[in-house]
Amino acid sequence: MKHPVVASVNGLVEFRYSDLVERKIENVKQRASLRDIAAETGVSIATVSRVLNDHVNVAQRTRDLVLQAVERRAVASQRTRTVYVRCPYVLTDYFGLLVSSVAEGLKLHGLRLLLDAGESGQGSSVLRSLPETGDVDAAILILPPEDGEELLALSRAGFPFVVLDPRVSPLPDIASVSAAHFAGARAVADHLISLGHRDIAVIAGPEEWLAGDARLAGHRAALAQAGVLLAADRLRHVEPTTAHGRRAAAELLQGSPRPSAIVCFNDKVAVGTLQAARELGLRVPADLSVAGFDDIDLAEATSPPLTTVRQPLEEMGRIAVAQLIRMVEGQALEALHIELATGLVVRGSTAAVA
Amino acid sequence: MKHPVVASVNGLVEFRYSDLVERKIENVKQRASLRDIAAETGVSIATVSRVLNDHVNVAQRTRDLVLQAVERRAVASQRTRTVYVRCPYVLTDYFGLLVSSVAEGLKLHGLRLLLDAGESGQGSSVLRSLPETGDVDAAILILPPEDGEELLALSRAGFPFVVLDPRVSPLPDIASVSAAHFAGARAVADHLISLGHRDIAVIAGPEEWLAGDARLAGHRAALAQAGVLLAADRLRHVEPTTAHGRRAAAELLQGSPRPSAIVCFNDKVAVGTLQAARELGLRVPADLSVAGFDDIDLAEATSPPLTTVRQPLEEMGRIAVAQLIRMVEGQALEALHIELATGLVVRGSTAAVA
Repeated sequence: MKHPVVASVNGLVEFRYSDLVERKIENVKQRASLRDIAAETGVSIATVSRVLNDHVNVAQRTRDLVLQAVERRAVASQRTRTVYVRCPYVLTDYFGLLVSSVAEGLKLHGLRLLLDAGESGQGSSVLRSLPETGDVDAAILILPPEDGEELLALSRAGFPFVVLDPRVSPLPDIASVSAAHFAGARAVADHLISLGHRDIAVIAGPEEWLAGDARLAGHRAALAQAGVLLAADRLRHVEPTTAHGRRAAAELLQGSPRPSAIVCFNDKVAVGTLQAARELGLRVPADLSVAGFDDIDLAEATSPPLTTVRQPLEEMGRIAVAQLIRMVEGQALEALHIELATGLVVRGSTAAVA
Repeated sequence: MKHPVVASVNGLVEFRYSDLVERKIENVKQRASLRDIAAETGVSIATVSRVLNDHVNVAQRTRDLVLQAVERRAVASQRTRTVYVRCPYVLTDYFGLLVSSVAEGLKLHGLRLLLDAGESGQGSSVLRSLPETGDVDAAILILPPEDGEELLALSRAGFPFVVLDPRVSPLPDIASVSAAHFAGARAVADHLISLGHRDIAVIAGPEEWLAGDARLAGHRAALAQAGVLLAADRLRHVEPTTAHGRRAAAELLQGSPRPSAIVCFNDKVAVGTLQAARELGLRVPADLSVAGFDDIDLAEATSPPLTTVRQPLEEMGRIAVAQLIRMVEGQALEALHIELATGLVVRGSTAAVA
């Protein structure tokens, strides 16, 4: 039996199948660990290495033994490709669910998940070095803080990755998975308009955030269809926390005339808005309708429970994994940018205008 | 210069410092990757491998070049040890925050996090194979579903790991980090007793769960001090969800006499209890006091906001990492079982008995 072309790369064994396996696959790269092979064959590690580096002074039987073990390992090791998943935020309900579904998806496909989570991940320049780290095969980047340029550089380096919940507008050459923010925001605004509301304020997230822009556009589109324009003093941009929502809502509600409804682009901000309304003696939904966004657990915990827009977090994670696997296996993607439908969840915090 | 004893192990280079470095350390195991060394030295991978496998036909200059590179890599590579972190649950607020703090801690120490998250991780027999997977150096197991035996086996295999938030009572030889469940539950019961409550029902989590047992013991201890015993019909065990809490609370509140307070060992269960009270026309806290456990975000979102017991999730994660690092570096642990203080957070859902 002719032995295959081999070279010990990245401390792992990489070789062409060629004559090794029946089905002829050209240049399939496979990996195995020297120690595993030595352990499996009972041959010394040095000998394994000698075989793989094509030294002549190894008995044919030993050589075959090692190469067969390598083959088995190589096939097996396909099941342990490693995917770098970065979520530079605390894993509260929203991001935690995204990472959970990515984790389940990767596990389902036998891929390993190298996690980089937490706010300290922001501003790190890890992306540039990703292609060099030989033991990471691909990446899923959740709401990456980097600008388009850095992402394009990573893509030009030929490193397979998917952007999950992109912050900037989708880039031509970069695979991304996001929620239908425009449609979601339009749906909640349409719902309020159908209840007779016209003066609908918005408490949005930080500016220059793709989802925020898209949601604002959806909100404006629904209003425009009803012949209404969003006045500048009806829009606030805040960090997505209960405290910030409370403050922004208090401002909106103390002005006069008072908006009859407030749409918040985040459930925690909506919770703050409910608190502000309570403090001002306003009844929700009788005096004020309030809607949130995301449908995290606490949206059901408030009283009244929140009307909100459900984000398909689980589907987003699963699709991101599916897209990544196609890329890693060199398959073409049916679509580079996938947008998943959101769903309006009507609960008790919205009602007909007084 | 004499070259060190080397062997290519697990596809990585492992050798004794001996003559290599000034400070004489015996049998210090270090690692480096063949490809990195080849890249760094401009020597072919085959040559690097030959040097490391102690072949004679390599020029002394090349040999020194390679071994020096190996040394640099070896030192550097200590910074990329990999820790397997398993959390066989969805990363909602509670578990998500635990994993986030573990991730931040590991990153701070330059360790890589291999994540296994999501409910599909339950019932897997991964623990047994952990010591064999040559590329994982240690593990942090969050609320492991395994019984003590499996954990003891892993510990006997000499694999370093820490149990974070143990389900079963701490095992003699296994490092664990948990919250002071007993003290936390006693604190919330004491708080209610000081408000005049004596008939205090409990909606606990699933049975045979360490935290639940400890909390129940704390609750009973506080009642006993006030000369009260917890009646069997005042205790419910449910899954930690809003829906289950709502059902259990409805049962407790429809009986007569009605408890004047309900302590829930989970915030979501407390939210369900608030809903049940509302449905029965009971005012919280005027007619019924309700307390939760964990202090996740939604505890502030309810109305009235929840009196609850804050769990030191961030500290737990950080301490678990610190303990693990001591183990990996062969240092002695000051304490094998660390219990972190919980904090009573008094909000609007508890008041003096009517």
